[in-house]
Amino acid sequence: MKVVVIGAGNLAAQLAPEMQKKGLDIVQVYSRTARNAEMLARRLGCRWTVMPEEIDASGDLYVFSLKDTALPEILPRIAPNDGLWVHTAGSLPMAVFAGYAARYGVLYPLQTFSKERAVDFRTIPFFIEAASEADLEVLRGLASLLTTQVEALGSEQRRFLHLAAVFACNFTNHMYALAAGILEEQGLPFDRLLPLIDETAAKVHAMAPRAAQTGPAVRYDRNVLGKHLEMLDSGYGKALYEMISKSIHQESVRYE
Amino acid sequence: MKVVVIGAGNLAAQLAPEMQKKGLDIVQVYSRTARNAEMLARRLGCRWTVMPEEIDASGDLYVFSLKDTALPEILPRIAPNDGLWVHTAGSLPMAVFAGYAARYGVLYPLQTFSKERAVDFRTIPFFIEAASEADLEVLRGLASLLTTQVEALGSEQRRFLHLAAVFACNFTNHMYALAAGILEEQGLPFDRLLPLIDETAAKVHAMAPRAAQTGPAVRYDRNVLGKHLEMLDSGYGKALYEMISKSIHQESVRYE
Repeated sequence: MKVVVIGAGNLAAQLAPEMQKKGLDIVQVYSRTARNAEMLARRLGCRWTVMPEEIDASGDLYVFSLKDTALPEILPRIAPNDGLWVHTAGSLPMAVFAGYAARYGVLYPLQTFSKERAVDFRTIPFFIEAASEADLEVLRGLASLLTTQVEALGSEQRRFLHLAAVFACNFTNHMYALAAGILEEQGLPFDRLLPLIDETAAKVHAMAPRAAQTGPAVRYDRNVLGKHLEMLDSGYGKALYEMISKSIHQESVRYE
Repeated sequence: MKVVVIGAGNLAAQLAPEMQKKGLDIVQVYSRTARNAEMLARRLGCRWTVMPEEIDASGDLYVFSLKDTALPEILPRIAPNDGLWVHTAGSLPMAVFAGYAARYGVLYPLQTFSKERAVDFRTIPFFIEAASEADLEVLRGLASLLTTQVEALGSEQRRFLHLAAVFACNFTNHMYALAAGILEEQGLPFDRLLPLIDETAAKVHAMAPRAAQTGPAVRYDRNVLGKHLEMLDSGYGKALYEMISKSIHQESVRYE
């Protein structure tokens, strides 16, 4: 299977080498940024381009891993072909390809990717969607090379899954960042929080997040909450402390 | 070492049995709630009381694990004695004991505890503080029975550590809860997020949270952010989405 990789960001930088490792033939990388295209192509030992018009028309599979706004911009510039076009975005409908490709779909890995960090693909849930039953099976076979978790999911549900992932990953990481900032100001090392962070994540394997909730906000301990607010400089940290505490309390009252 | 446990909440319910397992002699449990006192005392095979005045005066160690507001209320009702009095709270200064006990300190385990979930104590960082050098060494010895991570820390820094822990644990868990709510409404199972949650936690072992940040907010992708806001019902979820995204973006711009 000849694969063209369109995009060279965090996701493409992890997915493309993994596909190659599983025997797929990556023939070309496109990125708007020459440096990124070249760097990924060098790792893969394939050609690269910065021109959508130069994208190889002989591919069997085109994997688009671009910013959501970049995808519609480059689609009209790619020569139509017989390959299967898929994107890897949680928030974009499959229909973004309609009118540009005859065969298209989605291959969405629910994970956070950074260029410099390898992840274990076998545990990543992949959500697939395709315009035809035949291509859904193509994607199922392909995803099964990478992971043990493959599921068909429509565009509408996928965007809610992506929204949930923003809370569970991006916003969670920001909570870590705010904690790190507080410790930094006190000259305390961040790594002291790691056992707590690990246990917080491990806990929701065994109980629902609502049942796992602990801390001053869930019992709405005004004394502690008030002191904490005094300790925070005015800014997002303080405003978020207040709003998240109220939200936790509301949730706990609702389900009591 | 004869130990009296004052409080029978989440923390006491994990700490007391662990202390017993390590050879400490738990002689009595106090709780304002008879049911809780009795339940924990039964597990430990010791006496219990709901009357602060009946707290055994012959203990070597008194471990107070109460709500922050409850501690100052019961202290005047306990007969003075020669034991070492410690609390397990992140946000209370050690000086809360001044005037009530001759020997006092703090034994703060930085972890989230639920009654129904066992935790591995050996990895929990314990932060200790005492009014005398001699008692600090007593606490160091005691904590070393429970964990490999013992550190002396003053009250002022401890309260910032506790504030950071609220972000890293309680607020993180609430992000999981908001994600779970979104999936629930779509009939999607929460466990699909677990590999993402695990990787988000694992990532900050290897890189600073700021460097680990991904998602639409860090690149301030107005397109995705706008769509996500439309998908959320008005309420805390929506307001938090907006404020956290702004906070992430501010942080990313500041350190670019």
